[in-house]
Amino acid sequence: MSFYKREINDVKSLETQMHGKDFLLTWDKTDQELRATLAVANILKKMHSDNISAKLFNSGLALSIFRDQSTRTRYSFASATNFLGLTVSDLDEGKSQIAHGETVRETANMISFLTEIIGIRDDMYLGAGNSYMQEVGRALDDGFERGLLNQRPGVINLQCDIDHPTQSMADLLHLKNHFGSLEALKGKKIAMTWAYSPSYGKPLSVPQGIIGLMTRFGMNVVLAHPPGYNLMPECIDIARNNAQKSQGAFMEAHSMEEAFEGADIVYPKSWAPFDIMKQRTELLKAKDGEGLKNLEKKCLEQNAAYQNWECDRKKMNLTKDKKALYMHCLPADISGVSCKAGEVSAEVFEASREDTYREAGYKPFIIASMILLNRFANPSEILENLLKNAQKRVEGI
Amino acid sequence: MSFYKREINDVKSLETQMHGKDFLLTWDKTDQELRATLAVANILKKMHSDNISAKLFNSGLALSIFRDQSTRTRYSFASATNFLGLTVSDLDEGKSQIAHGETVRETANMISFLTEIIGIRDDMYLGAGNSYMQEVGRALDDGFERGLLNQRPGVINLQCDIDHPTQSMADLLHLKNHFGSLEALKGKKIAMTWAYSPSYGKPLSVPQGIIGLMTRFGMNVVLAHPPGYNLMPECIDIARNNAQKSQGAFMEAHSMEEAFEGADIVYPKSWAPFDIMKQRTELLKAKDGEGLKNLEKKCLEQNAAYQNWECDRKKMNLTKDKKALYMHCLPADISGVSCKAGEVSAEVFEASREDTYREAGYKPFIIASMILLNRFANPSEILENLLKNAQKRVEGI
Amino acid sequence: MSFYKREINDVKSLETQMHGKDFLLTWDKTDQELRATLAVANILKKMHSDNISAKLFNSGLALSIFRDQSTRTRYSFASATNFLGLTVSDLDEGKSQIAHGETVRETANMISFLTEIIGIRDDMYLGAGNSYMQEVGRALDDGFERGLLNQRPGVINLQCDIDHPTQSMADLLHLKNHFGSLEALKGKKIAMTWAYSPSYGKPLSVPQGIIGLMTRFGMNVVLAHPPGYNLMPECIDIARNNAQKSQGAFMEAHSMEEAFEGADIVYPKSWAPFDIMKQRTELLKAKDGEGLKNLEKKCLEQNAAYQNWECDRKKMNLTKDKKALYMHCLPADISGVSCKAGEVSAEVFEASREDTYREAGYKPFIIASMILLNRFANPSEILENLLKNAQKRVEGI
Repeated sequence: MSFYKREINDVKSLETQMHGKDFLLTWDKTDQELRATLAVANILKKMHSDNISAKLFNSGLALSIFRDQSTRTRYSFASATNFLGLTVSDLDEGKSQIAHGETVRETANMISFLTEIIGIRDDMYLGAGNSYMQEVGRALDDGFERGLLNQRPGVINLQCDIDHPTQSMADLLHLKNHFGSLEALKGKKIAMTWAYSPSYGKPLSVPQGIIGLMTRFGMNVVLAHPPGYNLMPECIDIARNNAQKSQGAFMEAHSMEEAFEGADIVYPKSWAPFDIMKQRTELLKAKDGEGLKNLEKKCLEQNAAYQNWECDRKKMNLTKDKKALYMHCLPADISGVSCKAGEVSAEVFEASREDTYREAGYKPFIIASMILLNRFANPSEILENLLKNAQKRVEGI
Repeated sequence: MSFYKREINDVKSLETQMHGKDFLLTWDKTDQELRATLAVANILKKMHSDNISAKLFNSGLALSIFRDQSTRTRYSFASATNFLGLTVSDLDEGKSQIAHGETVRETANMISFLTEIIGIRDDMYLGAGNSYMQEVGRALDDGFERGLLNQRPGVINLQCDIDHPTQSMADLLHLKNHFGSLEALKGKKIAMTWAYSPSYGKPLSVPQGIIGLMTRFGMNVVLAHPPGYNLMPECIDIARNNAQKSQGAFMEAHSMEEAFEGADIVYPKSWAPFDIMKQRTELLKAKDGEGLKNLEKKCLEQNAAYQNWECDRKKMNLTKDKKALYMHCLPADISGVSCKAGEVSAEVFEASREDTYREAGYKPFIIASMILLNRFANPSEILENLLKNAQKRVEGI
Repeated sequence: MSFYKREINDVKSLETQMHGKDFLLTWDKTDQELRATLAVANILKKMHSDNISAKLFNSGLALSIFRDQSTRTRYSFASATNFLGLTVSDLDEGKSQIAHGETVRETANMISFLTEIIGIRDDMYLGAGNSYMQEVGRALDDGFERGLLNQRPGVINLQCDIDHPTQSMADLLHLKNHFGSLEALKGKKIAMTWAYSPSYGKPLSVPQGIIGLMTRFGMNVVLAHPPGYNLMPECIDIARNNAQKSQGAFMEAHSMEEAFEGADIVYPKSWAPFDIMKQRTELLKAKDGEGLKNLEKKCLEQNAAYQNWECDRKKMNLTKDKKALYMHCLPADISGVSCKAGEVSAEVFEASREDTYREAGYKPFIIASMILLNRFANPSEILENLLKNAQKRVEGI
């Protein structure tokens, strides 16, 4: 059976109710819905490679709201929406009048009259990013119900204070394809560990997203970080519950070494302690520049105590057959390359560079998949039609 | 007769010469041309709702030049051009070399070789915005006549120092649809009144645009503002003349209460006094930061004397059946919500929120209509073809 | 024979290997390849004028990276890519995380998963711009070979420290069309001369690009500048060698008057001395603000000694029949218009304004041609199909 047929059958076999539903947290979605997201992303990636058009929209806007810097996610969103026929319009809050007292409810409607999808990155303020996305969603529900909007745009979380679903789902697709299937992930050990970085204030959404997602499919997830570098307690609970349901495991370790022991996959990445992020959120809200400087200084000093949390060859040698799959959402802080001492040694990173690029390459297709599943009630039919028509994406080649 | 047939017949019945003509001021257009603009906008809005493609352009750029912040108009321009098949290219003057001595004439040609439409917002300097648009238009005429441009792009005023035609036309379409027809507006009383705001330097283009347009169709237009908050005298003359021709009325009142008395529609909105705007223009030109600060202080103090110019329930009770249609171009300064005391009470705004969103929803289609009428000599035929082909805007739904 | 048939036959007759090859320097390309680029650009320009669609891409991104301000080139890239069906995504380094330690290699891959073409402007640092483009190209080769990218995007130099091929090729197309053919350029004298400007730090890429390209087709190229305003020695060598091969000539003169004597074409334009640019590069790298200020002061003083290097009527009278074709990449520093004293007198510029606009109008089509030749192995067939289908670019006209 052809690749397409197999994957489309997979989509058909799954019970999903993703049409019209925002994608804000992976744990809001059922296992079957996550499987469908992966399958559709795989199909779209192959279509791109096979020069088959995925243009489902003749016109329509894809709004992006980036409340933090972004290269990869911004580019992935632009790629995904373009592939489907949508056009990005970036709501640059510097160029807009949003600072001038516009409420979320109002803005959400004002930018949605001809909009199909809204992608939001809002990861700076603890307790704010995901709530903001939910608030946007409620405003859109209301606008659509009142007949003010011709369609209710979907909302996709491009990273918030809690989760980073486009990243974690791209990571999961990478694992699925690397190990052959989701089933093959059962019992595999993945070490999500903190790593040293000379920078500060990195969001918690990646480690939280990873432990919240990878515990869904029977993996053995180990979280490790130095004392004080806790994640949000709710996310720990979610991981624990998921592991129980999926007959996997979730454990916490106290060193990178312990976590790496026999691991099939390692994901060493820096983040800021939850408590520091809470203080930072308060200081940012109060616009307390002095306070922020002091906090940064304190935090960097604290980080510096854990410079040995570097993913180096010696630690990699503790992993399964000494060759665990190294993962990173990029950019990594590479010792001696992008900084003096960082998350990963140059040797380890170089050996895995190709893997990390392949991992990143799934994100545009994960986003496209999320959009397709949000906009269309009949995704398998939609894909079958695209494949039947097989319009060329680029003419003459 | 179907909606489409009726509206297209309306377009056919009207004598218009809008092809190739810029849309800079509503009073440059005949009544029939304004009617055509409204009808085409209504058709396009229904087409969007009916999932029918309006893609008339296979490629082509829509240039935007925003010399002031904008959310709604920027988004509306992006939506409208995308719906027709054009791609926005924003001339961000910060990223360009314009500050380095490029003349308007040169820039206008340089950005027009493959451009179909140019949208300009320039409302900061009194006496400058509209002149700039006209200068761009003349440069394009010249470039096209000399064979330097394959086509002469149309220019659309996205707000200038004098008028805000995409806003006022969206407002008029809202009124037409709300009351059932343009004919139904005859004799209706609309109160365009100043309202208190704790901010300063708001442009005059909305009130000027409203009194210049609403006096065209037999409405009874009342303008009210505190002493000193005059509009440009030319605009007052235009309103007076229009009212005479349309057998409507234009009057000035001296309080919000007086203006609201028996009104069918109220439009309470803050603006800066004409004289202050003139001084501000000089200070901006002279880059006199100190002077600007002093002016702002003076102006805010002056504003503060008129805090009672707030659209509250008590004043709304003076209107026709106590339930005049409340209008605002948004965002409104809502007392106790977006500011301590502002243009409108939270109660009144909440009751009318849906109306203001509906009002705003017309703008993308008004802009699309202006573009269509500028680019095509035979608009009704063009629309009939789109409807006959009825290509889906979104596949499979 | 029709225009299209003649030009397509021209393309067919030429031996080219441009498919998949970046366009970084005109001297990397064979004469036949340059001829093909001009012919394809001419065809595309006529197609645009004839309302024939050139949409070869159903979707796909065109990445732009501008490391310096730009109006014309930015707009030309947007136009060209839009005409072919691509969508620009601008890698704004201010909005991205690039400053945070991302390497060129990584970024190049991260932005390329669904990208067809990458346009780069990087002209600020001597020794850096072109190398950066090459580095991007190598990273893309690597990513494609390893199967990380579905396609290897092409790279187009939108101006670097060495060459400005989209400018010089647009200039050459202007000359080809102005004089009737490339053959008609044989023996024509072109004066590429420095001109006075009250500004500082203008890149060397235009004069270098011009002497490196115009010496290819048998022209008599004369370079003139005040003492010290040297170009990069490699570029002088390239020009000398080219002239020898093409049986043209390359000479240096010591005054604008000497260079203009009997010239068919003059290109008076300011640039910074090579040595100053080297110092500036070092100071920029060291972020030495004080040093940069001093260098600017010194450089402006040096410039001021050569205010008589202005292209005025008297000097123009020295040229062939007193009416050489005046060229400029725009914007020109026009004496009494954009500055007190500059590169060209208002009289001369006014007389040639139309020519300079026509010259500029070729750039979008040169870029579109470069993209087409990079992406398609069979350009003449591709163009024949577009012309046979003759899909309208704008409906109904």
